[in-house]
Amino acid sequence: MKLVIKVTGKFFDDQGDKTPLSSAIRSLVQEGHRVALVTGGGTTARKYISLGRSLNLNEASLDLLGIWVARLNAFLMALSMPDLAYSRIPESLEQFLEYWGHGKVVVVGGFQPGQSTAAVSALVAEAISADYLVMVTTVEGVFDSDPKKNPNAKFLPRVTTTELKSILENTQSVKAGTYELLDPMAMKIVERSRIKVIVTSVDKIGKLTRIIKGEETASIVEPV
Amino acid sequence: MKLVIKVTGKFFDDQGDKTPLSSAIRSLVQEGHRVALVTGGGTTARKYISLGRSLNLNEASLDLLGIWVARLNAFLMALSMPDLAYSRIPESLEQFLEYWGHGKVVVVGGFQPGQSTAAVSALVAEAISADYLVMVTTVEGVFDSDPKKNPNAKFLPRVTTTELKSILENTQSVKAGTYELLDPMAMKIVERSRIKVIVTSVDKIGKLTRIIKGEETASIVEPV
Amino acid sequence: MKLVIKVTGKFFDDQGDKTPLSSAIRSLVQEGHRVALVTGGGTTARKYISLGRSLNLNEASLDLLGIWVARLNAFLMALSMPDLAYSRIPESLEQFLEYWGHGKVVVVGGFQPGQSTAAVSALVAEAISADYLVMVTTVEGVFDSDPKKNPNAKFLPRVTTTELKSILENTQSVKAGTYELLDPMAMKIVERSRIKVIVTSVDKIGKLTRIIKGEETASIVEPV
Amino acid sequence: MKLVIKVTGKFFDDQGDKTPLSSAIRSLVQEGHRVALVTGGGTTARKYISLGRSLNLNEASLDLLGIWVARLNAFLMALSMPDLAYSRIPESLEQFLEYWGHGKVVVVGGFQPGQSTAAVSALVAEAISADYLVMVTTVEGVFDSDPKKNPNAKFLPRVTTTELKSILENTQSVKAGTYELLDPMAMKIVERSRIKVIVTSVDKIGKLTRIIKGEETASIVEPV
Amino acid sequence: MKLVIKVTGKFFDDQGDKTPLSSAIRSLVQEGHRVALVTGGGTTARKYISLGRSLNLNEASLDLLGIWVARLNAFLMALSMPDLAYSRIPESLEQFLEYWGHGKVVVVGGFQPGQSTAAVSALVAEAISADYLVMVTTVEGVFDSDPKKNPNAKFLPRVTTTELKSILENTQSVKAGTYELLDPMAMKIVERSRIKVIVTSVDKIGKLTRIIKGEETASIVEPV
Amino acid sequence: MKLVIKVTGKFFDDQGDKTPLSSAIRSLVQEGHRVALVTGGGTTARKYISLGRSLNLNEASLDLLGIWVARLNAFLMALSMPDLAYSRIPESLEQFLEYWGHGKVVVVGGFQPGQSTAAVSALVAEAISADYLVMVTTVEGVFDSDPKKNPNAKFLPRVTTTELKSILENTQSVKAGTYELLDPMAMKIVERSRIKVIVTSVDKIGKLTRIIKGEETASIVEPV
Ligand SMILES: Nc1ncnc2c1ncn2[C@@H]1O[C@H](COP(=O)(O)OP(=O)(O)OP(=O)(O)O)[C@@H](O)[C@H]1O
Ligand SMILES: Nc1ncnc2c1ncn2[C@@H]1O[C@H](COP(=O)(O)OP(=O)(O)OP(=O)(O)O)[C@@H](O)[C@H]1O
Ligand SMILES: Nc1ncnc2c1ncn2[C@@H]1O[C@H](COP(=O)(O)OP(=O)(O)OP(=O)(O)O)[C@@H](O)[C@H]1O
Ligand SMILES: Nc1ncnc2c1ncn2[C@@H]1O[C@H](COP(=O)(O)OP(=O)(O)OP(=O)(O)O)[C@@H](O)[C@H]1O
Ligand SMILES: Nc1ncnc2c1ncn2[C@@H]1O[C@H](COP(=O)(O)OP(=O)(O)OP(=O)(O)O)[C@@H](O)[C@H]1O
Ligand SMILES: [Co+2]
Ligand SMILES: [Co+2]
Ligand SMILES: [Co+2]
Ligand SMILES: [Co+2]
Ligand SMILES: [Co+2]
Ligand SMILES: [Co+2]
Ligand SMILES: [Mg+2]
Ligand SMILES: [Mg+2]
Repeated sequence: MKLVIKVTGKFFDDQGDKTPLSSAIRSLVQEGHRVALVTGGGTTARKYISLGRSLNLNEASLDLLGIWVARLNAFLMALSMPDLAYSRIPESLEQFLEYWGHGKVVVVGGFQPGQSTAAVSALVAEAISADYLVMVTTVEGVFDSDPKKNPNAKFLPRVTTTELKSILENTQSVKAGTYELLDPMAMKIVERSRIKVIVTSVDKIGKLTRIIKGEETASIVEPV
Repeated sequence: MKLVIKVTGKFFDDQGDKTPLSSAIRSLVQEGHRVALVTGGGTTARKYISLGRSLNLNEASLDLLGIWVARLNAFLMALSMPDLAYSRIPESLEQFLEYWGHGKVVVVGGFQPGQSTAAVSALVAEAISADYLVMVTTVEGVFDSDPKKNPNAKFLPRVTTTELKSILENTQSVKAGTYELLDPMAMKIVERSRIKVIVTSVDKIGKLTRIIKGEETASIVEPV
Repeated sequence: MKLVIKVTGKFFDDQGDKTPLSSAIRSLVQEGHRVALVTGGGTTARKYISLGRSLNLNEASLDLLGIWVARLNAFLMALSMPDLAYSRIPESLEQFLEYWGHGKVVVVGGFQPGQSTAAVSALVAEAISADYLVMVTTVEGVFDSDPKKNPNAKFLPRVTTTELKSILENTQSVKAGTYELLDPMAMKIVERSRIKVIVTSVDKIGKLTRIIKGEETASIVEPV
Repeated sequence: MKLVIKVTGKFFDDQGDKTPLSSAIRSLVQEGHRVALVTGGGTTARKYISLGRSLNLNEASLDLLGIWVARLNAFLMALSMPDLAYSRIPESLEQFLEYWGHGKVVVVGGFQPGQSTAAVSALVAEAISADYLVMVTTVEGVFDSDPKKNPNAKFLPRVTTTELKSILENTQSVKAGTYELLDPMAMKIVERSRIKVIVTSVDKIGKLTRIIKGEETASIVEPV
Repeated sequence: MKLVIKVTGKFFDDQGDKTPLSSAIRSLVQEGHRVALVTGGGTTARKYISLGRSLNLNEASLDLLGIWVARLNAFLMALSMPDLAYSRIPESLEQFLEYWGHGKVVVVGGFQPGQSTAAVSALVAEAISADYLVMVTTVEGVFDSDPKKNPNAKFLPRVTTTELKSILENTQSVKAGTYELLDPMAMKIVERSRIKVIVTSVDKIGKLTRIIKGEETASIVEPV
Repeated sequence: MKLVIKVTGKFFDDQGDKTPLSSAIRSLVQEGHRVALVTGGGTTARKYISLGRSLNLNEASLDLLGIWVARLNAFLMALSMPDLAYSRIPESLEQFLEYWGHGKVVVVGGFQPGQSTAAVSALVAEAISADYLVMVTTVEGVFDSDPKKNPNAKFLPRVTTTELKSILENTQSVKAGTYELLDPMAMKIVERSRIKVIVTSVDKIGKLTRIIKGEETASIVEPV
């Protein structure tokens, strides 16, 4: 199978061990899957965006700073799998496709201002006709409202893009670094190419191979 | 002033003379403005997208074909101004910014699947903190409905992004090659960076310098 | 075997199905051959050259427009074989060699003003020490005069480069977009590296594997 | 004058205002100087090196992580001067020289494992035949021992490279992220090309134009 | 004026002073001309081609070795004019055009197998619509036969391309490193774009500014 | 095993047959080893450095000339193994790592001024976690003093880096083209990453596979 795994930048915030991610990818590759990994920027991105804001940078430049930090996280992961991963981090989808053609794991930070890492991962998934886009986030899956704000939010094992859109509506913003789950662009790509999306949490990185097989609880977003 | 001029790909469809566009840009440069030009793909793009579809390409690949044709149109215009324009067509916003730093006219086709040339021009306008984004299209400006479909559509000299959104809603699509005027991404960039947009027609290319000064009728879209 | 297949740009002129070409290349690869594909520009190239001429471009720029359209055709074919072909179209022979080293099909448009796609394919064939250069053109093979102009032209199953030169002499021109069959540069490369050339028609693309084996009628040009 | 300014990565550690650095460079440029800026990696570099170490990366990879963070700081500063600075961060000295030829401020992070940002700045200074290499560090200048470890260290307004070498000897290490002031490579470059080095502190960034003119206290290292 | 100066690679054979060439170019630039310099490979090229032949390389590879040595000579000259020349040596005409757009002297070695440095310089001259292509060779100008082989060869102050062709015919060869004066490709470019060619000798490099003005004896080749 | 083989530039000085080197590498690859080859510049480098000195180039530029000649030697060797070697010569360690990821032999000239080809090979060895760095030089191995200057120098089959340092001390210089055996940077990399170094002579290139296995006399430098 062809898999795109998108990991929240918050995964890189603390000094905790990052080997579960490399190990999970290694297992997937050993099982015969092809894997693209997309990393977010996390707190370091927000720190640099804030430094940029105090330097009066425009929105495009702030986004670029966030993209560079996401690429730094991508580079860290690529270095941790020198035998499996392409050593360069692509700066555009065309570059991604060139690297992907090498048969290796390709690790991506971001491509361009104005889009979230979710959109990046959707673009990547569409371009390679991926079987699944796995979003590894800070919460267990999709809820009927933001679980970070509402402790009573209800976990949804299965949700259509239409349902998800109505849940996310009004909670999305395009200010740099503030997108959430699936921004409108990611949503449109997912819908037009009917990409199957799995949402799970960083705590379950060690169980990625099981999640892919549907042996572990996670939310599935179905494009309609 | 810093200007981004987006010209519909349909301008390149026929064999008619393209010098009015080079001449207009030359005039703007001579008046001391800096100019970025964004070209669409037009009918040739649609021809290649259709060839691609019969080859069973996915949506990302179809968009890439359209982007390549848009770049071909961009290259034609760059070649027509060898003294003014940077000779390379950028493949990403980061590349655009590198070329733009040379003080020359930079001509852009497209950057990435999933976005219209309108979104590309908005990204470019935001990144250089442009004074105006001028959309040179096939109709005289913004109307209260699509003038191509409704002959009674009313010309709107001034419209807010909110109003425009409600006009365009439901008429937008993200299938390759079918975006119109401002797609959602273009809209969001325009709003978050408060970019002033002028909409005018290819028939008025010779009057671009007057349009910039507000001496010629055109629609203005105001971000709110 | 190592094969270079050069397809006339006219193959891309109409909206007809292009899958026979991808399929033929797929078969050749599956039989264990390595394949480089070179595409011409065809009518779209001539359209852009004509647009360029009305913009007063010099000969080098007109050739570059033709090269870009040839690369667009190359890109279309590369996209149609995402698993087999390198996703980038090389801009020079050195880039071609880098891509070729990846073990994939490499699709080439043009390299440089002043040379036909025939010369490009000869350069490519020489650089990889190809076993055959197959020219897929609009006519059945080599004739004793241009079959497009002379309906009584006689088909030649076997011809030496010396004979071909005397046939082509005076019918060759170096104005952009007007080379035919083998221009002088292609001829010299073919001779100095003793490249075996097969000439066949687009109607026989489906029989390429048979042509390579000599099981199908085609002209053979022997370098002397 | 041609100036290379090397700023400690620790300058980017906190969320304090970074405009004094952009402003100082702007002033120097306005006075007619050409400026190359080299930034260190600071605490963020050390954080990523530590993440890398827990992933078992080799020394070269750890250095590359530090270099990427230094480039991130470089990119932040380049974005803060879009009119003055080249928008790309060079990955090698040859790339630096290409960018430098554009007449702009070029901002550099690092080039290669095994060398400190001090060595990078010495290489840059040598390559452009700089008049001064200004090291902006965390202490007031050169002391007769490390002032961070010895509160009684004595400030040295003038010191030869020979003297400095004997001071630094035994306190230098080449483990990633632990070089100090001038490592052996920086020292050799400074000596072989007789580069004049000024050492000053981040607290005096606002006074850089005065420091260059010798109107403000700072240490001068004289190559012998 | 826009000038292309092609210097024989033999100029770099001995250890003699190369400053007359840099100085001549500096003078031309100071008089307001734009200059592209094309360098040949000379004896070092032939040494490497011979090393390559003993390693059984094909003709394309041998040509590439010659091209690399020509680029080494180009790099030497570029380094000798760091303030005037672009620091990179272009690998293709498209790259040349990008560098040329920077307003600097661009120094070129070669582009591609199968063509002489004479052809490279003709391509460059055509692409920039040069006023003159000056060939600085080992003999005083054009003669009615090869002056190296025939001591009675007669100097020709003025010659048409047609006349030159009939003189050179039969003396040209396309084996790597053996082209002379103008090979067929150079000839065709010169003719189709009507490029004025001046032929002079390395002994007169110091008089280049006078030669351009026609104040010094040299041969002129007129395209017909 | 992963092997880095560094060959003195003097190997390329004469017109003698270079096939023993390609053959040795081919054998190593066939035995299942991965090989990176680093070539020096030799006499041609010194010729160009001397030409550069007469043109008053600075030290960085002189080093760059030497690096380019080393890359020319690298290119020659890469061309001699078109099926095994990556066709591009990397300009930096990051580029080397990208090429190395292709599973091919990568041939390296130099990376950067201020370091010897010995340092380059140590950097490469560290970056790929090589099993051995084999220095193929003009003498049989390590001696207790420079055997070129002292005919009574004693061959040392086994030496620690500490011992070697005290031998080389005072005989090292950083002027372009004058480094010997292991310069300080190479030494530091070798020590910090505990790289095992074998020193042997060009006369034994045909026995490289035996040397790796310890079946042939050579010096071993042990990092301490
Ligand atoms: N309310 C409206 N006001 C104006 N134009 C509208 C409106 N709704 C839809 N349109 C359509 O938007 C189109 C703008 O498309 P245009 O051809 O300028 O750009 P494009 O589609 O990006 O070009 P390309 O052909 O290069 O893809 C017009 O042709 C017009 O018919
Ligand atoms: N003696 C001859 N035998 C065969 N073909 C000949 C001969 N003389 C001229 N030709 C012409 O050569 C042409 C070959 O051109 P072809 O379209 O294959 O390549 P091309 O011109 O490079 O393609 P493109 O349209 O991409 O530029 C044929 O159409 C044929 O009419
Ligand atoms: N004799 C000395 N005089 C001055 N400083 C000294 C001396 N010996 C050691 N140092 C130390 O050198 C350090 C210089 O390091 P600095 O932070 O400027 O550069 P850096 O380590 O390259 O920065 P980065 O954090 O980006 O890696 C000072 O913090 C100082 O403590
Ligand atoms: N009729 C002629 N008039 C002048 N020169 C001629 C003529 N016929 C042959 N030649 C030869 O052409 C040569 C021109 O070659 P030149 O060394 O300038 O270029 P090159 O071969 O491209 O240089 P490089 O050594 O770099 O390859 C002269 O040495 C001359 O002997
Ligand atoms: N103690 C020693 N043992 C062995 N060799 C020594 C010693 N001291 C100095 N050398 C010298 O080191 C030299 C190694 O240099 P070598 O030619 O291999 O590399 P290089 O200088 O990088 O090559 P290049 O010519 O490409 O620059 C030998 O020629 C030898 O004379
Ligand atoms: Co469109
Ligand atoms: Co590759
Ligand atoms: Co440091
Ligand atoms: Co530039
Ligand atoms: Co020659
Ligand atoms: Co050396
Ligand atoms: Mg044709
Ligand atoms: Mg040496």
